[in-house]
Amino acid sequence: MVKRPAFARWLSDSNDVTRTFLAAGQIPGLINMAGGLPDPSTWPVPELTALARAAVADHPGDALAYAPIEGLPALRDMIAARFSAPDLALERKNVLVTTGGMQALDLLGKVLVDPGQVIAAQSPAYLGALDAWKPRGPRYRPMRLEASGFDPVAALTGAQFAYTVPNFSNPTGRLVGLDQRRALVAAAQATGTWLVEDDPYGTLYYDGAPLPRMLALAASGGSYDGPVVYLGTLSKELAPGLRVGWVIASPEMIEALVTAKQGSDMSTSGLSQRITLDAFASGLTDRVLPATLALYRARRDALCAAMEEHLGDLFDWEVPTGGMFVWATARDPALDMDRLLRVGLSHGVCVTPSSVFDPEGRNRSAVRINFTLNEPGRLVEGVRRLAVAARATLAEAVAV
Amino acid sequence: MVKRPAFARWLSDSNDVTRTFLAAGQIPGLINMAGGLPDPSTWPVPELTALARAAVADHPGDALAYAPIEGLPALRDMIAARFSAPDLALERKNVLVTTGGMQALDLLGKVLVDPGQVIAAQSPAYLGALDAWKPRGPRYRPMRLEASGFDPVAALTGAQFAYTVPNFSNPTGRLVGLDQRRALVAAAQATGTWLVEDDPYGTLYYDGAPLPRMLALAASGGSYDGPVVYLGTLSKELAPGLRVGWVIASPEMIEALVTAKQGSDMSTSGLSQRITLDAFASGLTDRVLPATLALYRARRDALCAAMEEHLGDLFDWEVPTGGMFVWATARDPALDMDRLLRVGLSHGVCVTPSSVFDPEGRNRSAVRINFTLNEPGRLVEGVRRLAVAARATLAEAVAV
Repeated sequence: MVKRPAFARWLSDSNDVTRTFLAAGQIPGLINMAGGLPDPSTWPVPELTALARAAVADHPGDALAYAPIEGLPALRDMIAARFSAPDLALERKNVLVTTGGMQALDLLGKVLVDPGQVIAAQSPAYLGALDAWKPRGPRYRPMRLEASGFDPVAALTGAQFAYTVPNFSNPTGRLVGLDQRRALVAAAQATGTWLVEDDPYGTLYYDGAPLPRMLALAASGGSYDGPVVYLGTLSKELAPGLRVGWVIASPEMIEALVTAKQGSDMSTSGLSQRITLDAFASGLTDRVLPATLALYRARRDALCAAMEEHLGDLFDWEVPTGGMFVWATARDPALDMDRLLRVGLSHGVCVTPSSVFDPEGRNRSAVRINFTLNEPGRLVEGVRRLAVAARATLAEAVAV
Repeated sequence: MVKRPAFARWLSDSNDVTRTFLAAGQIPGLINMAGGLPDPSTWPVPELTALARAAVADHPGDALAYAPIEGLPALRDMIAARFSAPDLALERKNVLVTTGGMQALDLLGKVLVDPGQVIAAQSPAYLGALDAWKPRGPRYRPMRLEASGFDPVAALTGAQFAYTVPNFSNPTGRLVGLDQRRALVAAAQATGTWLVEDDPYGTLYYDGAPLPRMLALAASGGSYDGPVVYLGTLSKELAPGLRVGWVIASPEMIEALVTAKQGSDMSTSGLSQRITLDAFASGLTDRVLPATLALYRARRDALCAAMEEHLGDLFDWEVPTGGMFVWATARDPALDMDRLLRVGLSHGVCVTPSSVFDPEGRNRSAVRINFTLNEPGRLVEGVRRLAVAARATLAEAVAV
């Protein structure tokens, strides 16, 4: 056969671990604690059925036509109102509706990154963000927010943007404290660098009151024009299948993102936008939240108790106060997590190794364990299997 | 204020005409024949209401969860079956579901174009495709398919892909004939260059039987692995607000596009996919088509009759046998279409000037006139206004 043109260069930089994951989906009886999926039992199916019906029947112009690129005006107004705060006056021009949170990351890469430019990224970093930016060819400057002596101004200087997940970071579950939020915002204001606040887990606080968003800390009282670019999503709050997210930012940034979105998918599904608007307006998202929090809190507790029992001698971790993940670091550097992934699969358990959250794929010291998808009994059994697999991996490493 | 980082380079290459369009939306009483919108009266609202309700109520796992990146398996199978032909055996692995047709264009740019590489594009070319590929920094080789001596092998050699809209091209409404389809497919097979068949208007034949798709002409009898990459969409067949499209291609191409889609929006709305599947399965798309064709055929006829009456001395055009557009070329080169756009707006009519369909913005000789959105009476009045505006534009040009 005649030779076909080569694919774009970024595609050749593929990740073996991702393929292993995909294959894992086929293993019968596997306890999958690798993903970041919500529990389907949290979805209010009867209420969403009614909203879907009403969206088409009562608002066919919204649901069935091309929506404006920026999103339905009423939904943009609703999001502006929901995220406004005493000193933060958001308007429609501060809001772009996106096709899930992932699209916001894609659009940010398109409008801010030319090849070789620098992204300062909280490290370890969300795998999906690294995937979204790969076609733009960025360089990464890791930000280790928990390191003593971390200097936000030095970290942000010269970067196109800084990427953070302050509420229960994916992968580490870490909550960025109020002082550090203030310091990051001040650094963005001093350097001009955009500060991206990716907040998919912002409603999932299990133990305390939510900290102020960096978006609100960046407000100056008037019409919002600050350096914080806030990313929200309906996926964790209601249901991921609708594919609705949003960006809140200065009008200048929204305009650039709109130009990029036009060439990405023209507009987000009007049907999904109309359902989102009605879910917010009717209070549905607020009504379902307490049950979701109770469910996930109990699962976090079950996972951490089982880890204490079975993994306490092998790993260190902190109990997260929100989000979807526990981040466990191996005490023995000989315990290689890429290897643990493979051994774990043969023992019927899957967790995510740290290498996928490192743009250079080098960090093999930790695993991310999800607690939202599986019932407590499954979580306990998963941890038991993981402990067996970890001991086998370690024995293998010593034998070599 | 401190200086913010510059936006990516492609964004500075913006188009003044596009801004004029956006502003045009605000003019009261304007007759807009510039877009490419379907008539909302063609949407089967009661049937779609029932499908939306059933999608959530009966298939919450499909509608509300993250769908597989590739699309719902049953929808991929359905699309494979719909587009299979006597010699063309399509399978699930040949199909990717996209978020509207636009996303397919975006993904193609991501997987096939590194900066400076060549896209051979049917000229004049669909504006949305040019927008989608701008962030990838391609060079363009125009293909004038109607030119005598057009050589498909020369056109395709060394290009990453060739982009065509064989059924009623946007903007020209031109139908690519069977011989030329065969020649393009043969050239793709000889050179290895991918041949993109973008087919949003493939169901909108008003006067004759549909010609074979290039996808089918590229089939070799076995499992499909040919060079044609076929793009379809639900937007013209049912409703654009669902944002559902599809790519049919060799498994190798589908795999690359899946990697790109994961970083673009993770997956297409499961709710929209489920509705699409049920619309195909229940025959809804086939049932609504005859009325849509009758409506658009009558509008095309009304537009062309009015053009004959009012514009016959100023423009040349061919009556299109399908699609959404008439392409009218000015007889007098002094009649500048970018200027006609502006003068037309002051006379309450909007059409699309040829410059936006030229990657270099130079072609100012023609306009694209849409006939699907407006009723016959409005089309006639629009043409009347356009004739007045054209004479005024010409008088102005002569005076200068």
